[in-house]
Amino acid sequence: MEKKLWGGRFSEGTDQFVEEFTESVSFDKELALYDIKGSIAHARMLGKQGIIPQEDAEKIIKGLEEIKKEIEEGRFEWKKELEDVHMNIEKALIQKIGDVGGKLHTGRSRNDQVITAFRLYLKEETQNIIELLKELKKALLKKAKETVDIVMPAYTHLQRAQPIRLAHYFLAYLEIYNRDEERFRDTLKRIDQMPLGSGALAGVDFPIDREMTAKELGFSEVMRNSMDATASRDVIIEFLSDAAICISNLSRQSEDLIIWNSTEFSFVELPDKLTTGSSIMPQKKNPDVLELIRGKTGRVYGDLVALLTIVKGLPMAYNRDLQEDKEPVFDAVRTLKGSIIGMTKIIEGMKPKKENMEKAAGGFALATDLANYLVRKGMPFRKAHHVVGQIVAYLTKENRELESITLDELKRFSDLFEEDALNILNPYSVADARKSYGGTAKERVLEQIRYWEERLS
Amino acid sequence: MEKKLWGGRFSEGTDQFVEEFTESVSFDKELALYDIKGSIAHARMLGKQGIIPQEDAEKIIKGLEEIKKEIEEGRFEWKKELEDVHMNIEKALIQKIGDVGGKLHTGRSRNDQVITAFRLYLKEETQNIIELLKELKKALLKKAKETVDIVMPAYTHLQRAQPIRLAHYFLAYLEIYNRDEERFRDTLKRIDQMPLGSGALAGVDFPIDREMTAKELGFSEVMRNSMDATASRDVIIEFLSDAAICISNLSRQSEDLIIWNSTEFSFVELPDKLTTGSSIMPQKKNPDVLELIRGKTGRVYGDLVALLTIVKGLPMAYNRDLQEDKEPVFDAVRTLKGSIIGMTKIIEGMKPKKENMEKAAGGFALATDLANYLVRKGMPFRKAHHVVGQIVAYLTKENRELESITLDELKRFSDLFEEDALNILNPYSVADARKSYGGTAKERVLEQIRYWEERLS
Amino acid sequence: MEKKLWGGRFSEGTDQFVEEFTESVSFDKELALYDIKGSIAHARMLGKQGIIPQEDAEKIIKGLEEIKKEIEEGRFEWKKELEDVHMNIEKALIQKIGDVGGKLHTGRSRNDQVITAFRLYLKEETQNIIELLKELKKALLKKAKETVDIVMPAYTHLQRAQPIRLAHYFLAYLEIYNRDEERFRDTLKRIDQMPLGSGALAGVDFPIDREMTAKELGFSEVMRNSMDATASRDVIIEFLSDAAICISNLSRQSEDLIIWNSTEFSFVELPDKLTTGSSIMPQKKNPDVLELIRGKTGRVYGDLVALLTIVKGLPMAYNRDLQEDKEPVFDAVRTLKGSIIGMTKIIEGMKPKKENMEKAAGGFALATDLANYLVRKGMPFRKAHHVVGQIVAYLTKENRELESITLDELKRFSDLFEEDALNILNPYSVADARKSYGGTAKERVLEQIRYWEERLS
Amino acid sequence: MEKKLWGGRFSEGTDQFVEEFTESVSFDKELALYDIKGSIAHARMLGKQGIIPQEDAEKIIKGLEEIKKEIEEGRFEWKKELEDVHMNIEKALIQKIGDVGGKLHTGRSRNDQVITAFRLYLKEETQNIIELLKELKKALLKKAKETVDIVMPAYTHLQRAQPIRLAHYFLAYLEIYNRDEERFRDTLKRIDQMPLGSGALAGVDFPIDREMTAKELGFSEVMRNSMDATASRDVIIEFLSDAAICISNLSRQSEDLIIWNSTEFSFVELPDKLTTGSSIMPQKKNPDVLELIRGKTGRVYGDLVALLTIVKGLPMAYNRDLQEDKEPVFDAVRTLKGSIIGMTKIIEGMKPKKENMEKAAGGFALATDLANYLVRKGMPFRKAHHVVGQIVAYLTKENRELESITLDELKRFSDLFEEDALNILNPYSVADARKSYGGTAKERVLEQIRYWEERLS
Repeated sequence: MEKKLWGGRFSEGTDQFVEEFTESVSFDKELALYDIKGSIAHARMLGKQGIIPQEDAEKIIKGLEEIKKEIEEGRFEWKKELEDVHMNIEKALIQKIGDVGGKLHTGRSRNDQVITAFRLYLKEETQNIIELLKELKKALLKKAKETVDIVMPAYTHLQRAQPIRLAHYFLAYLEIYNRDEERFRDTLKRIDQMPLGSGALAGVDFPIDREMTAKELGFSEVMRNSMDATASRDVIIEFLSDAAICISNLSRQSEDLIIWNSTEFSFVELPDKLTTGSSIMPQKKNPDVLELIRGKTGRVYGDLVALLTIVKGLPMAYNRDLQEDKEPVFDAVRTLKGSIIGMTKIIEGMKPKKENMEKAAGGFALATDLANYLVRKGMPFRKAHHVVGQIVAYLTKENRELESITLDELKRFSDLFEEDALNILNPYSVADARKSYGGTAKERVLEQIRYWEERLS
Repeated sequence: MEKKLWGGRFSEGTDQFVEEFTESVSFDKELALYDIKGSIAHARMLGKQGIIPQEDAEKIIKGLEEIKKEIEEGRFEWKKELEDVHMNIEKALIQKIGDVGGKLHTGRSRNDQVITAFRLYLKEETQNIIELLKELKKALLKKAKETVDIVMPAYTHLQRAQPIRLAHYFLAYLEIYNRDEERFRDTLKRIDQMPLGSGALAGVDFPIDREMTAKELGFSEVMRNSMDATASRDVIIEFLSDAAICISNLSRQSEDLIIWNSTEFSFVELPDKLTTGSSIMPQKKNPDVLELIRGKTGRVYGDLVALLTIVKGLPMAYNRDLQEDKEPVFDAVRTLKGSIIGMTKIIEGMKPKKENMEKAAGGFALATDLANYLVRKGMPFRKAHHVVGQIVAYLTKENRELESITLDELKRFSDLFEEDALNILNPYSVADARKSYGGTAKERVLEQIRYWEERLS
Repeated sequence: MEKKLWGGRFSEGTDQFVEEFTESVSFDKELALYDIKGSIAHARMLGKQGIIPQEDAEKIIKGLEEIKKEIEEGRFEWKKELEDVHMNIEKALIQKIGDVGGKLHTGRSRNDQVITAFRLYLKEETQNIIELLKELKKALLKKAKETVDIVMPAYTHLQRAQPIRLAHYFLAYLEIYNRDEERFRDTLKRIDQMPLGSGALAGVDFPIDREMTAKELGFSEVMRNSMDATASRDVIIEFLSDAAICISNLSRQSEDLIIWNSTEFSFVELPDKLTTGSSIMPQKKNPDVLELIRGKTGRVYGDLVALLTIVKGLPMAYNRDLQEDKEPVFDAVRTLKGSIIGMTKIIEGMKPKKENMEKAAGGFALATDLANYLVRKGMPFRKAHHVVGQIVAYLTKENRELESITLDELKRFSDLFEEDALNILNPYSVADARKSYGGTAKERVLEQIRYWEERLS
Repeated sequence: MEKKLWGGRFSEGTDQFVEEFTESVSFDKELALYDIKGSIAHARMLGKQGIIPQEDAEKIIKGLEEIKKEIEEGRFEWKKELEDVHMNIEKALIQKIGDVGGKLHTGRSRNDQVITAFRLYLKEETQNIIELLKELKKALLKKAKETVDIVMPAYTHLQRAQPIRLAHYFLAYLEIYNRDEERFRDTLKRIDQMPLGSGALAGVDFPIDREMTAKELGFSEVMRNSMDATASRDVIIEFLSDAAICISNLSRQSEDLIIWNSTEFSFVELPDKLTTGSSIMPQKKNPDVLELIRGKTGRVYGDLVALLTIVKGLPMAYNRDLQEDKEPVFDAVRTLKGSIIGMTKIIEGMKPKKENMEKAAGGFALATDLANYLVRKGMPFRKAHHVVGQIVAYLTKENRELESITLDELKRFSDLFEEDALNILNPYSVADARKSYGGTAKERVLEQIRYWEERLS
């Protein structure tokens, strides 16, 4: 049996099952390059500070760089009995350069080592996600520009509510994903802090230079308390919560587009290359990407709940429970990145069916504006609402649409109605009447497009 | 590009990203052997019913058996572009035996095929979990038998409450895990129902014989409604909820034992082979298995939340979101099995430190019984409680334990106290006084041990 | 300050904030009548066993019955400073009948008292839920009987898939809610076990008779281990998980009906009395009940997660954390009952729009059957699927429906097509072709209706 | 039956059950004053813009102020049949000032009205929580200052790891709660944006002035897209996630203190006024506040999951599901505020038991430093770790503590040991050796105290 690096006080080897149950190398090897990056910075600092001889530091760095290459080229052999990515690399280092490799662990502990690698990983992936969100925002802006002149019904309760310009819809999601991005940016400030140099939990009794390693690793700040640095995971949970919120937003837009893609709505066409077929129904062209984004929402929620559960009631400081913090994050990162890319491709590739949208934007979706007409003539809103409600009931009973009403009929419900009331009944003019800041009038939509063009360029 | 089996109506190939985003073969190949089992039963039935020629059925079965062997021997090559385990196998079959392989999919759909394989898997794993729980229960019973004569304090609020026999503690968990087993058994009834023969959702227009396939596959029942059979996942969620409850129980016992294993409590010793060391602190012998069980609880909760989220608001019938139902289950199965095994090993290997437990079981843990003494002398319980409360306050102030009190002192608080009051102050006799059914008195504990010996043999 | 019943050893009163933070009477008074029921049974047993004088027992019972009346009539004054429902009632009892009231707590603890009242409550509410599910199932069966002759498209991926009889849809949910009921029934077995007589955790040192109280309270079983009885909450979580699964099913059907209720689908009409309007859009008639059921799903999921979180890593035995087990259950009970009733009313009141459904059931939803036609002529299924896929692509390009195809056109794709191929293209005959057990053919649907009529009568 | 304000098109009254199932006034009246505040600003703007006559605006404002007073004085009568807080107030206004009250709803919708009131509430409560966190941080700083000279063992895996200064522990939590505060501050930026003026979803067709209402209501920004403004809830979820993370941190510290408060650890004494007793065990003094904080963690997690679930797959724009967004927030606000206050009181009131902590800080907790001694003498760390591991095993076998070792014995394990090795074995000097930035050395701890004193003053 491979002797454990920590095996000094142990009189018997580790149980085979325990070895497998406790190992993490099968997944935490995803951190390998970040671990090596952290170790190289640590070794360089140890050498510079004279904690270990300069030449030892150089040997260690050279060894680590070789190992890095082996990993990148897929030549490195991971061993489960060495528990985790960190022990695998350290053991390989000692085998490669001899006992001097054992000096690398001077002035650090696995506790600060692990969380440093994890934060390096998370910082990079957060930046990646921010970039992907930018691409998605750009795709939405582009689509908004293309669809200013398409009118469609907006829905509440999945009922046609009021006509909007399609661009207005895309701009709404632009705002939403923009807040997602902001959240990741806020979290990034808290990720970008270096725990290295905190030891197991109490700090280090060698004259280390944490500013130096922070600078080398690109961290903006050095963490101020060694217990906090090694035992806290709140920033990781914050990341997962950003991810959960982001994918919840993606799930909402997916739902919109799945519904629009139904035969009954027929508001969009999705390109063949972004859809899939059925094993049994030859006619099917399924919006699988959208369904999977919606479904994968569960996954990211699950990841968040997993980590929230882990830290609940967990005493200070490090406990082995925290080993379980990685897989949910790896999974959420992978899932979210895929989902953002998927949505971006869908936005780019989808084709609105203008005619169908326009047709659906008329009819009773114009009723609010008929009520507002009466308000402008002096009727209190509540009463106007009531009057138009009765008009709707009357037409529904006759199976007629709103546009079919005559002035005579209108007058039966209120004598405030005049000729110009009929002019209202057009989805474009109704949309354009909503000129309040943030509204769907064409000028307002164009104003927002200009705003975002400036901001995103 | 590999042509999709469903590609008839498609004019362009699938986007590379979409292929990777939508594929499931990287994880659902875990179902490979169950899928083949289902396909063989289906082929045999097709042949017997004359839906396909008998010799075609035989060719198909032979081909599937060869593929099965290739998979078992690790020779099968999985292709992501073929999406899932089912398409991989079907394509391989067609390559192996020619166009006749295409007949296998007669009278079924991927929808009923997938959920059939999944139910076969789940049935087997549920049975495995039930077996593992039995082993755990046996380990607890064995330990209970060994520890009838050890007295310890039971805790409420992590405060010493009353003395119990250690065996009583193990029997409590035996009850708990027994309910976990019952839950899995109840769920098993609902898992053990066959969806095959439901087609995509509406049933099948070939004269298939579902009783025959059910019998061959070992299902107790045939599902009565084809939409329900293909689109429901409530039974899967039920399984995950059983798993979540079970691991929540394991997490509680883990917490007990982690606390008992602290230097301050020193109630148990864990064997070297079930513990691990620290990379930096040579003295550490950490209860990692227990911590990981506790931590992995988050994982299984996350799996449950994932699937609950997926089905929320999902319209009928099958949607691609449901592809996401598998990984949470695979993860929960693996995690739970490992956790039960881990706990079983810990129970078997742990050594109680009798002396420390005994010592802790005395003192104020005996206070309730002093109050009950007064009740027996006629004082209402509430008053007796108050009197003994004052005795405790008095001794605490003097930094003394309950056993140190004298009769004179007792009489100062109530003249109902007599010589025999002092006899109470012994944890063994106090434990044995709790003779109510289900109580911790030795005779009651032995009664329960006999009960479980009979039941578990 | 009101003196606490447990205040003997305490030298200062409870902090005002702590009193409010720790009180539970504001919500657990929902258990009042169950608590009194448990106390009466306990007092009667104490008297019969001679643990307290018979006349004291009678006084206590009489006092409790008066308190019960006061509560039922809304005359009882609840005090937060008395912490919980149990202390409120006990204190009131002592005030009413004097010191003898203090004898009620002989041979029990708040720990077994609380969980007994909670189990009595839960048993009753579980039975109520089972009754409501039966009503819902009956409503579905009635609706199925009314809709055997309506054909509609079933959907996968929200795309029209294959024609089914509408009754088939209702029967699918009947199966689903039937499993929900089964789950509650299975859980009921585990709820229906009595913890009373377990004391704080170790049992009781008075000669109590637990069989007697169990019988009086209507419990089927007496719990076998006092620690388990007072400290476990797994059965409560199981109840919440049943509730979460049940409402997830309700959320799915809500989604179906919300979509069907859109103008675009127009498959159902909901009665005015079950819908609501908009404050601003006079035309709106919103399916609020369905939306709220779907939304309240979050609530019940949250309740489940709350309790799972609470027990995670909680050491044995009782901890105050467990006080938090009640509100999630009260909330889930209320929410689920309302949601089942709401769905039942909707099912009863909804009116299918036959014409629209029929129309949508034709077209490409018939494509599978065209492929099966070729299979019957000897073509392997995969090839037939491909051929029909090409027919669909061809027609889609020309913006034509499947029914518009001519024999000549068909023959261009395969010469296996003959005159009778065109007869297939009718949703009723296509639905009726699915004669496999569990399929949507009329005879199968009627078979299932008969099955359920027998079972539900 | 009270006529609904939206009842124009409805031919029958609302079902009694539906009324109760859909009402929200029983909980959303918590928003009453925020709703009135929003309405007053809206009315003033309508008047100023000439959308309604100035005198009507004044009547409305006066009426609203009277209603406000009635609510504050508990004289307002809430009616469930009026659905929600907003309809209750509007109806009361109309009753009070006549038809002119109906003009208030001009140029707004319930959709923007509700979310405006909700954001006003959330802004205030977020500020409250930030203030409470500041108080908690101050309490920790004060405690840290008092405990610089107490040494205790820090734990990993609940095993004694290394000695730290108790102040170091308090400073760790100061960092943690400081990040909680930062998160709330980041979220506050996104809460502090005004949706009013977005109408139902498309904007408003009256010449409203959103800048004016924003200024009057104290919002820093006006939301840029009307659909986003009315239909998004991501910021609410972000708030809940901040709350969940914050209470997870509180749950960890609660766990620490519950463990420290056990007889076995005896590291702290909690004041009587912050603890409670047992109904049956007179000796108990339970840390209920801490247990409840730990338990209530489940509650806030549940609130977060509830809202995440609600928005999953919810199509644009407003759906009635979103009515369910309020109770989780109200609950989380109440729970979190109570928990922070509770923890603050505990921190202020707890008394560390210096002697017990000191005693526990010695022994094997000093082992790392013995290994580091060897490293300084030139031995690679891994080897030194191994040597000290063997020393620990040797002493454990003899049941001896580390301080009992002699130089002779040390030399048996390595001849690098010299006289000064024995000087290491003192927890104070070992703690003070950890001089790295962020470490537990006295000078470092004092440095951090100064840092926080400056920042918090």
